[in-house]
Amino acid sequence: MTALTLDRLETPALLLDEARMQRNIDRMRARLQRLGVAFRPHVKTNKSLEVTQRLLPDGPGPITVSTLLEADFFAQHGFTDILYAVCIAPNKFAHAAALQDRGVRLTLILDSLQTAGLLAAERRRSGRSWPVLVEVDSDGHRSGVKPDAPELLEIGRFLEDAGIPVHGVMTHAGSSYDCRSIDAIRAMAQQERDAVVRAAQRLRAAGSACPVVSVGSTPTATFAEDLSGVTEVRAGVFVFFDLVMAGIKVCRVDDIALSVLGTVIGHRPDMGWTLVDAGWMAMSRDRGTAGQPVDQGYGLVCDLDGNPIEDLIMAGANQEHGILAHRSGKVQGALQLPVGTQVRILPNHACSTAAQYGQYHVVGADGAVTATWRRFNGWSA
Amino acid sequence: MTALTLDRLETPALLLDEARMQRNIDRMRARLQRLGVAFRPHVKTNKSLEVTQRLLPDGPGPITVSTLLEADFFAQHGFTDILYAVCIAPNKFAHAAALQDRGVRLTLILDSLQTAGLLAAERRRSGRSWPVLVEVDSDGHRSGVKPDAPELLEIGRFLEDAGIPVHGVMTHAGSSYDCRSIDAIRAMAQQERDAVVRAAQRLRAAGSACPVVSVGSTPTATFAEDLSGVTEVRAGVFVFFDLVMAGIKVCRVDDIALSVLGTVIGHRPDMGWTLVDAGWMAMSRDRGTAGQPVDQGYGLVCDLDGNPIEDLIMAGANQEHGILAHRSGKVQGALQLPVGTQVRILPNHACSTAAQYGQYHVVGADGAVTATWRRFNGWSA
Repeated sequence: MTALTLDRLETPALLLDEARMQRNIDRMRARLQRLGVAFRPHVKTNKSLEVTQRLLPDGPGPITVSTLLEADFFAQHGFTDILYAVCIAPNKFAHAAALQDRGVRLTLILDSLQTAGLLAAERRRSGRSWPVLVEVDSDGHRSGVKPDAPELLEIGRFLEDAGIPVHGVMTHAGSSYDCRSIDAIRAMAQQERDAVVRAAQRLRAAGSACPVVSVGSTPTATFAEDLSGVTEVRAGVFVFFDLVMAGIKVCRVDDIALSVLGTVIGHRPDMGWTLVDAGWMAMSRDRGTAGQPVDQGYGLVCDLDGNPIEDLIMAGANQEHGILAHRSGKVQGALQLPVGTQVRILPNHACSTAAQYGQYHVVGADGAVTATWRRFNGWSA
Repeated sequence: MTALTLDRLETPALLLDEARMQRNIDRMRARLQRLGVAFRPHVKTNKSLEVTQRLLPDGPGPITVSTLLEADFFAQHGFTDILYAVCIAPNKFAHAAALQDRGVRLTLILDSLQTAGLLAAERRRSGRSWPVLVEVDSDGHRSGVKPDAPELLEIGRFLEDAGIPVHGVMTHAGSSYDCRSIDAIRAMAQQERDAVVRAAQRLRAAGSACPVVSVGSTPTATFAEDLSGVTEVRAGVFVFFDLVMAGIKVCRVDDIALSVLGTVIGHRPDMGWTLVDAGWMAMSRDRGTAGQPVDQGYGLVCDLDGNPIEDLIMAGANQEHGILAHRSGKVQGALQLPVGTQVRILPNHACSTAAQYGQYHVVGADGAVTATWRRFNGWSA
């Protein structure tokens, strides 16, 4: 059989460099093992059976999901220990019950007395409850209860009284994405750990068992030095990495395992532009590097071997058109890549770019496509 | 049968207000009829059989596509007159040939001698050719040949010599999205028309038949006053409209037919935040209103009837979390929508938000879900 080489692919297409991915996985697993914490990978980035199987090579282990569709999919493939890491809404109770009925130990999260009240009402109505973690706000980034807030203990007491034991606490230091140095990420990791361990201590002192203490973000998981008191780490983006992560030095550009294959379709020499058939629909509208010291536009352009073409970025994008230009905007010296030339474009954000595709073309060491792995998107089948 | 009401839907979900959509379609069709031009709707926004059937109520008519997957899908449903409106790349010749073999009259576009050369080589190799339009640059926005450039006639001559007759010219005045007044859009529509008609005249004077003169963008199609010499109009976004279009007064906010249904999952009263289970994955990362006089964040928040909740926008977003806040950022007076409350969020850009979903929940006049229409995404099945 002839190998399927990249030049035989129709573009745009999503490429996954298997060796880089495996290196990213091995590094994170070894690190968490050294730190003595369990790994509950977040599958929201990959949404793929094959990738998740490589994250958990010993068989279906604990996973974190961002949608109940992810829970459905992985349950179907034998994963039974699933944390749904978005505060639960009542219109999802029926779905959560169906997952439980098929044998999934689905853990839910909440951060308010209002939601605790809705769960208690559901338990009274249907006799149904789920293990719950209380979300802790460790960095003012999003949701969660402050570790020292009176409400934390009120939620704990309310749940215990309602017959819903507090299974633990969790937090996500999303602000680590905005750190500008490794020292800052290390400090954020410590802050994340301290906040959630403190919350667990308070709940335990008030009588909850609270066995689970869960943290997670790719930057903090990569640089945490002390995870004492933490029982598990969630992280997802590290499996592919991206330009945002490279921009804050959590990875190197050549760790990025995901790229979009595009083809040159025209030029505007007067503007210094090279046009490709991969626009924002192919890259996503994510401009996550816009606020970083090095703005990569919609992506960093590489040759077919995955090596950056110096200072060529996707400077602009229409729905199906990418405008490649020199980073500086200079017109003279713009590269002349003839029509038909293929390029690989590294994405700002792995989660958003991957979500534009239904499959990964897996690229092996020799540059040939060795497999096609399906991925899914959305919230319902 | 009990009607499926919105409160029974799991969130996030994509809602389509059928009455608003029908009004948008009727208005555009009547307008183009008055102007005496044919309609070749762009289906890239909707990617749905049911929506496209409403755009062309007399049966499968001419359509514009942005991907060959759109061509495949609509060909399967009887559409045979298809314009692929992105300059062709050689790795798509095989796909374009397969479409032709199943009876599709597929028209391709190009804007360079390089691409003309590749098409000529393909014709020599396989005997295969397609009708081609030359893309004209009417506004410096993207690709295309300037209407007065010598290259236009060089391309025409090369194609005719190669036995590939020039079927016409096309342009897309994408800059109309950046107009700040209706007068500016009218002027842009005139510029778009003049450029492409001028290009057609030059090609005809040089001996090409050039029967097709195609223009299209929702803003220019909505306000063009003179389309003499133009044979067809492409437009797509108008079917749903969005906040970007409302921001440049091409539609009113209550013309927007698309919204994302989300549910309140928590609050941060100290910040004035209400959190919902629809984040950037549900809205897309499109921040198209960021550069407009009124920045709508990731979307404008409405109640379940579709009426804006005054000055409440999605001010920030994580992957599955939306942060709703008062437009001014003020904390006091922030609305208290209890956990479980559903809201409808109007999108910045219909194309990018719709692409995050595999289906539309169609909402009828009484606010009940009357149908579910599938849509597809990506570039390959």
